[in-house]
Amino acid sequence: MCLGAGINWTMFPSNLFSGLLTDLYELTMAAGYVQNRFDVRATFELFVRHLPLNRNYLVAAGLEQSLDFLENVHFPAEEIAFVRGLPIFRHVQPGFFDFLERFDFSGDVWALPEGTVFFPGEPLLRVTAPIAEAQLVETSLLSILHLQTLIASKAARVTAAAAGRSVVEFGSRRAHGTEAAVFAARAAYIAGCAGTSNTFAGHFFGIPVYGTQAHSWIMAHDDEAEAFSNFLDVFPEQSTLLVDTYDVRKAIDKIIMLGRKPGGIRLDSGDVLADSLWTRRRLDQVGWKDVQIFVSGDLDEHRIENLLCSGAPIDAFGVGTALSTSADAPYVGVIYKLVEVELDHRIRSTAKFSADKKTYPGRKQVFRLATAETTYCSDIIGLEDETFGSAEPLLVPVMSRGQRLETARQDPASAVRMAQARFLAEKARLPNGLLTLGIADPPYPVSYSARLEELCEQARQSFTTSPLT
Amino acid sequence: MCLGAGINWTMFPSNLFSGLLTDLYELTMAAGYVQNRFDVRATFELFVRHLPLNRNYLVAAGLEQSLDFLENVHFPAEEIAFVRGLPIFRHVQPGFFDFLERFDFSGDVWALPEGTVFFPGEPLLRVTAPIAEAQLVETSLLSILHLQTLIASKAARVTAAAAGRSVVEFGSRRAHGTEAAVFAARAAYIAGCAGTSNTFAGHFFGIPVYGTQAHSWIMAHDDEAEAFSNFLDVFPEQSTLLVDTYDVRKAIDKIIMLGRKPGGIRLDSGDVLADSLWTRRRLDQVGWKDVQIFVSGDLDEHRIENLLCSGAPIDAFGVGTALSTSADAPYVGVIYKLVEVELDHRIRSTAKFSADKKTYPGRKQVFRLATAETTYCSDIIGLEDETFGSAEPLLVPVMSRGQRLETARQDPASAVRMAQARFLAEKARLPNGLLTLGIADPPYPVSYSARLEELCEQARQSFTTSPLT
Repeated sequence: MCLGAGINWTMFPSNLFSGLLTDLYELTMAAGYVQNRFDVRATFELFVRHLPLNRNYLVAAGLEQSLDFLENVHFPAEEIAFVRGLPIFRHVQPGFFDFLERFDFSGDVWALPEGTVFFPGEPLLRVTAPIAEAQLVETSLLSILHLQTLIASKAARVTAAAAGRSVVEFGSRRAHGTEAAVFAARAAYIAGCAGTSNTFAGHFFGIPVYGTQAHSWIMAHDDEAEAFSNFLDVFPEQSTLLVDTYDVRKAIDKIIMLGRKPGGIRLDSGDVLADSLWTRRRLDQVGWKDVQIFVSGDLDEHRIENLLCSGAPIDAFGVGTALSTSADAPYVGVIYKLVEVELDHRIRSTAKFSADKKTYPGRKQVFRLATAETTYCSDIIGLEDETFGSAEPLLVPVMSRGQRLETARQDPASAVRMAQARFLAEKARLPNGLLTLGIADPPYPVSYSARLEELCEQARQSFTTSPLT
Repeated sequence: MCLGAGINWTMFPSNLFSGLLTDLYELTMAAGYVQNRFDVRATFELFVRHLPLNRNYLVAAGLEQSLDFLENVHFPAEEIAFVRGLPIFRHVQPGFFDFLERFDFSGDVWALPEGTVFFPGEPLLRVTAPIAEAQLVETSLLSILHLQTLIASKAARVTAAAAGRSVVEFGSRRAHGTEAAVFAARAAYIAGCAGTSNTFAGHFFGIPVYGTQAHSWIMAHDDEAEAFSNFLDVFPEQSTLLVDTYDVRKAIDKIIMLGRKPGGIRLDSGDVLADSLWTRRRLDQVGWKDVQIFVSGDLDEHRIENLLCSGAPIDAFGVGTALSTSADAPYVGVIYKLVEVELDHRIRSTAKFSADKKTYPGRKQVFRLATAETTYCSDIIGLEDETFGSAEPLLVPVMSRGQRLETARQDPASAVRMAQARFLAEKARLPNGLLTLGIADPPYPVSYSARLEELCEQARQSFTTSPLT
């Protein structure tokens, strides 16, 4: 079965760009807008309300896949038939199903480039489109940006703890499915990992791939030394040998007895500090000073920091589950909120005043101020037409009338490399306090501009004086 | 671009069945096995070493997608070219790339049916195949089974806390990507949820879909009452109206003033206990006793239990992030371990004796014993040819020589319904202590059979007396 034209299947395999990858209420609301001929142009902003546990900043990632989605999202005929058949759509008129059939996202999008460091309240993405369109894409945009931003923000901590040593993302087996594994690899690379074990991510995004051997390789052989020797036969220069299947020190002695120098030694369990110290000494004794020590096994940023503080002579780390699920904080509270509606050139800024869930109205821009030494010192969230001296506006246009801008169109490998370069440049400009594993005190200062506060107050006034309230 | 034949794209869109959706070391080991002509038949078992935080049992889910993967996994030419071009494969001979080109999983698989309750140490899946094949599929099998087992095990807690009231899975926006969102919906349904907001999961798996409206619907209108009225026009019978955008009680009075009875009222923030009590009284006063109260907003099993214990008159819950990321325990330590190798009809049972990471050798079966009242009382993990009186063996054959057995072939909707039915039947037979939110004390008793312990000891002996050790 060959699916419709216009979809570039090589773009990313695990995404059908189905319009149904969304919450049902996006469809009911879209039907409501279409049927009521509610032809307003709406602006939604996607942002985070609070920092997750243990985070001092967030790292924007996932924009490429969001734009792929917006460029390609559509409703195949059988999906429209499914919606039409749902009891709740019983009274919906045919115009809505025609709308789904013709659906082709036509909005404007501004976003933070991937790799940008950002903070709560700051829009990661801003969508302006006919309201039914902007509403329909909400769930997918949140889901796509959430995953990679979550993992990149965790990876930034892990790579900071590794203090210059390589970190390889190793978590495909515990990421939340095969698609999440690929995107976790991508996000981890953006935030400074040296590479991934995920071969698909290597192929598709040009991310360096790393791999050693599993315990099963050793166990499958009658004899551990034979297992090492057979592996070295096939990979004579780049074998990293796993030595903890039975007994770490005996295994290393077996390798030395073979007289064949491997590329590296991998420790995956046990007392890694003691074993790495012993291993380094033993390897150095036989003149194998360039054989690297690679450590994995239930690592996270805290274990890495502790090992390095204790002087463990480790050259590189493989970090799996904790990184690829962001285990200590497995979600970020991303939200997508209506901030403005425009009907017949009349603009109304909108806000929400629910208990503990207030939002700010209006189209925003994020302005970042730096010291004379170029260290970032504070952000101002203002309205899009404001300026603040030399402050850098962070949101850039990426899509206009549904077309991706040329400046936002790159091959997958270039995009991910540029995002990593941006993150590394940003990281170098962050105040040091933000880069520690503890909670930064004070936190990075972010404020709302006076004009934005004023607009918020106006929205509240106009709401509380509205006749029906 | 039309991709190769043999792939049923309707099976699941977000899975290309690419052989590269794996860790690089699976490929290096496979190359090692092929090049060394290491033609053993291997048996691997996929299981969990420990219960995650806060769990008394696990719920098996994801088998359908695992079998889809095993039936379809292959290596397209450009993926083989990618592997061949990696520096580490420089010395690998062409035979391995021919092997990848011809790759077609030919193994036998036994598994726990989806919806089965299981415990640490018990194989969820057992694969017997030529070792290179069995090794190559490791990462994907772990990743696929991990996600759904993780979410089903969390959902079982959430539905238990709801004590008969409906729970709808609402977490697509915070699940780890659009694929994870669909599978989280599936797994949540298996473990007793009434449905999902994920429309794709509704379409593909026949899971009931639910949706209300977002704050944006209300905010987009100048007037809240008009927003309610416009929605009721389009969905006159099934509107669930969201009342917390500005002020819950004023919103409900506006709906009453409209004189049009909605299907339900949704509370999404604030003091849900007080508001639900007030709302129920107010609705009942005007004779709207059948208008349901639906609650969402940062719910988990503990908040649901607290609300119901406090007498909150809630008819149904929408549970998002906490459920769809299994937020309190966002991973399960699934592993895939070699337990047996067979070479020229000689069988060797294998085990790992690393510090704190011991595994048991041999092909296993799980035997579940029940009381006269049919309540489950203990499990024995034994060898596959053992029997224990009336104890039920849980692992069943699902694939033979790479072909899915007819008994394991169902349409997606029937499979998920049967899995839910199995889980509900299992749940009814679990000891009550396991169904509470606290840690069961004592835990469910699981032991290894005497023959298995003996085989483990033999493996250890043969290892420690091996000449090269």
